[in-house]
Formats: sequence, C-alpha cells, structure tokens
Amino acid sequence: MLDFIKKNNVKISGEGEQAIIFAAGFGCDQTMWRYVAPQFEKEYRVILFDYVGAGKSDYSAYQSEKYKTLEGYAQDVVEMCKELNLKEVIYVGHSVGATIGMLASLQDPALFKQLIMLGPSPCYINDLPSYKGGFEREDLDGLFEMMELNYIGWANYLSKVVMKNLDRPELAAELEGSFCSTDPLCAKEFARATFLSDYRHVLQQVTVSTCILQCEDDSIAPKEVGIYMNEHIKESAIFFMEATGHCPHVSQPEETTQLIFTCLANI
Amino acid sequence: MLDFIKKNNVKISGEGEQAIIFAAGFGCDQTMWRYVAPQFEKEYRVILFDYVGAGKSDYSAYQSEKYKTLEGYAQDVVEMCKELNLKEVIYVGHSVGATIGMLASLQDPALFKQLIMLGPSPCYINDLPSYKGGFEREDLDGLFEMMELNYIGWANYLSKVVMKNLDRPELAAELEGSFCSTDPLCAKEFARATFLSDYRHVLQQVTVSTCILQCEDDSIAPKEVGIYMNEHIKESAIFFMEATGHCPHVSQPEETTQLIFTCLANI
Repeated sequence: MLDFIKKNNVKISGEGEQAIIFAAGFGCDQTMWRYVAPQFEKEYRVILFDYVGAGKSDYSAYQSEKYKTLEGYAQDVVEMCKELNLKEVIYVGHSVGATIGMLASLQDPALFKQLIMLGPSPCYINDLPSYKGGFEREDLDGLFEMMELNYIGWANYLSKVVMKNLDRPELAAELEGSFCSTDPLCAKEFARATFLSDYRHVLQQVTVSTCILQCEDDSIAPKEVGIYMNEHIKESAIFFMEATGHCPHVSQPEETTQLIFTCLANI
Repeated sequence: MLDFIKKNNVKISGEGEQAIIFAAGFGCDQTMWRYVAPQFEKEYRVILFDYVGAGKSDYSAYQSEKYKTLEGYAQDVVEMCKELNLKEVIYVGHSVGATIGMLASLQDPALFKQLIMLGPSPCYINDLPSYKGGFEREDLDGLFEMMELNYIGWANYLSKVVMKNLDRPELAAELEGSFCSTDPLCAKEFARATFLSDYRHVLQQVTVSTCILQCEDDSIAPKEVGIYMNEHIKESAIFFMEATGHCPHVSQPEETTQLIFTCLANI
C-alpha cells in the first residue's frame, strides 16, 4: 500500500520547510540517529529511513542483483526524494550512508542542497603509496569469511573496532545487537558492496556542497581518508571532531548535533 | 518543497503495513492524539496531520472559500491519501474530524477501509422533535458572537464545556490553549463550517464500515446523536464509553485506545 514508505520504513517528523534526511551506516538502522535527529525537528522536516534489508524495511523488496553495489541503495534514496516531492534536501549520511548520498547526488544533483558526511570513505582498501584507506584486501576477506563462519563472533569483533569508546561497553554492545539483528544474507552482501567499493574516481564529479565530519581515532575511516575526500570534492569543508571511533552520533551526540548545525549555517 | 506534507504538517511513524490516520477535532491539532496514536506504532503505519489553519499547518495555504465547508478539509484528506499512495486506510476522527473523514469517504470510498468516529455529530443543531443535536441556533450564534468580541473568553468557556472532567482542570486548560493558539480567522470560519453543518442526509450514503465511540455526558455530541448516526449509517456499530466529556482521547486515553483496538478487531 505504502510503496516506498513501507519499503524503506520512512518516518517523517518535524516542522520546518527544509527537509533533512538522516541515513545510517552499514548494519545499522534509523534508530542510530535517535539522539541527534530529534534536535532538528523544530527547524527542519526530518526524514528517517532504513535501507532495504536493514532495520524495519520491507525485506521482500530485497534483490541481491540491485543491492550488490551501493548504486542500488542510492537509487532508493533518489526515489524516496521524488515520491516525497523533495528538492534541495540536506542529506546527512553516516559512513557508507554518506557514499550512498553522494551517489544519489550524482544520479540527480537537483535533489540535494548539501551533503553532510559523518565518517565517510570513498574506498576502504589501501592503494599505497598514494592512498591509505585503512584496510588491506586480506583483512576484508578475513572479515567476510568470519561473517560466513561465525556471524555472531564477527558482529562482536567488528562492533568494538567500529565503535571504540570501550570504557562505555554498552555502545559497542548496541552496535553488535544492530549487526546481529540484520538479516545475515543482506548484511553479507551489503558488507561486500560497502567495503569493496572504490568511488575515488567520482569525488570530482560531486557538485553538491559537502561537509565532512572527521572523528579522532576512527579505524574505519581514518583521518587521511577524510582529508582525501575533502581535497577531491569541489565544494567541500572538513571539520575535525573530538569524538573518537566511527559512530560519533551515538558516542558523542551533542558534538555531532552541534557540528551538523555548524555545517547547516555554513552553506 | 514538501507540498502536502508541509501543507498539512504530515507525520509518519510506526511500522505496520496497514495505515491508520488520526484526525483532530475543531480547534485542535495532532498533539491531542499524543497519548493514543503511539500505541498503534508497533502494528500500524501511523499518519498524523493538521488541518490547514490549525496546528503547524501551512497557513499560507488557507483559503476562506475552500474551507467554508467541511468538504474543503475532506478534499485535503483525500489528496493526502493519494499523495501517499494509501488505499483502504483506517481513519480515526475526533468530533468534526469524524465528519471530515466521512465526507472524504464519500469523495473516494476506495481510500477507506474503516471509519472510527470519536464523538461524531452530523448536525449540532436541534431539529425537534425528530432530532436533538444538542444546540439551538441561538446558542451557536451566541458562541460565534463571543468569538468575535472576546476570543479568549470564548476559548476559556468552550474548553470547559467540551472537556468536562473539571476535577482535572489541566485538561480544559490545555484545550483552551489549543483554541487560543489557533489563528482566530481560521478558527471562526472553521467554527461556522463545523457547527452550522448538517450532514444527516449523507449518512445513508456512507459505504465504509464505521464504528462510533460515544462518550457519557458529552455536551457537544450527546448520546442521542451517536445513536442517530449508528441508525443511519448502513454498516456501523456503536460503543458506549465510560469516559465523560467530548475529548476521551485526552481525558481517558487508555479506554479510548482499547476501544479503537476493539473496533479494529471487529472489522
């Protein structure tokens, strides 16, 4: 009945004229934005959604062929914007959610006014000496293999690597729960689509104004990666956060919220 | 940008496949449903909205000509359903919100699966001896005059008449605040559209399955009115509530929620 709303479990809240979309990272759903997104409801129309295959999306809409690359997810973002008659949205994407927004902006630039990227990476694999993505291909193959053989163990391990902040073990535990509650088939295909992607060549085609929020001590998107993106996107700025790890919207929501407002003011 | 979403301040939450719309009564907005609507988010897709001219709707979309009758508001409900690709929705309407839903169902019956009417009335004016609506025309003219001369005094007076439950003065105070925060021009025109309406002649044309929830000691929609509606709508049932006054979703949200679930189960 609800088509795209059901498919992507779309939620609409807030009162402003300007739409702001919050997009999750790999293995996560919109609940990861629960500390940050409500702060924008007074001034913005807040749109939350889940990728097909994650959260409370419609799993019957999952197609391996479509979602084997991030373009499939980006296509859904474009469709959602069109169905909602959105134009010139603010798009805040975490991690691979940032890449998905960037790809959506290449599919239809007029839909986007600004991209705010939280811990983005155009390529996770090192291409030394010119590019340090943070992972060797063998590391990733090891992760994919672990997903096959011991999904729970993989979720436990990766959640700690991603979240950091191990003095607050409930944070990694939440992320682990999020990974574990994701359908393993979808998660495995999304993991390959994410971690094997290389979108360095499209950065220069991005025309939408971009802000990069770069965490300290982020093992998934190291500082060099944020700087690389900032250098290659035409109209971009980078802000270095005090937050550590790869999920500042969960571990340091106040700083994240504040910086998003700063980005919004700087357009 | 957001067209109907901005116009009617549409909110979408919840995860079910079946859409359920909650519509407010006169001088109120979607916040009146705050105790009830969230109870449906686990099983339903919950749609909340404000009438143009109320709540946080887009006041620039207000047109006296369109909204001088309830059909104008009903047209917006139909448009909202179409924009969201909704079909066979459950529509829960309070007071005049019930009438608006009924009129929308006459404009496009296929959009509606069930109408749940909380304190509805097809006609507020007595037409004795055959029909007791609860008001004499002179009473209403007095109210309209009071709205012109002393809007605040009118809001204070009517809120107590509507809410009852005077042992909990915060309830009437909230309703008074809601009346007062409504744009007086829109409120005055909506008051005339509401209280001077007579839709008794269309009741027999309603084809959608209907549940009427009838309060005790309701001065706006007395018991005889609920019974009259139930007798004249083809496929309808009436439930008599223990809640008193005209706003059970605010004064007795548990009973209201429970009865809505009962209606949903009885379709």
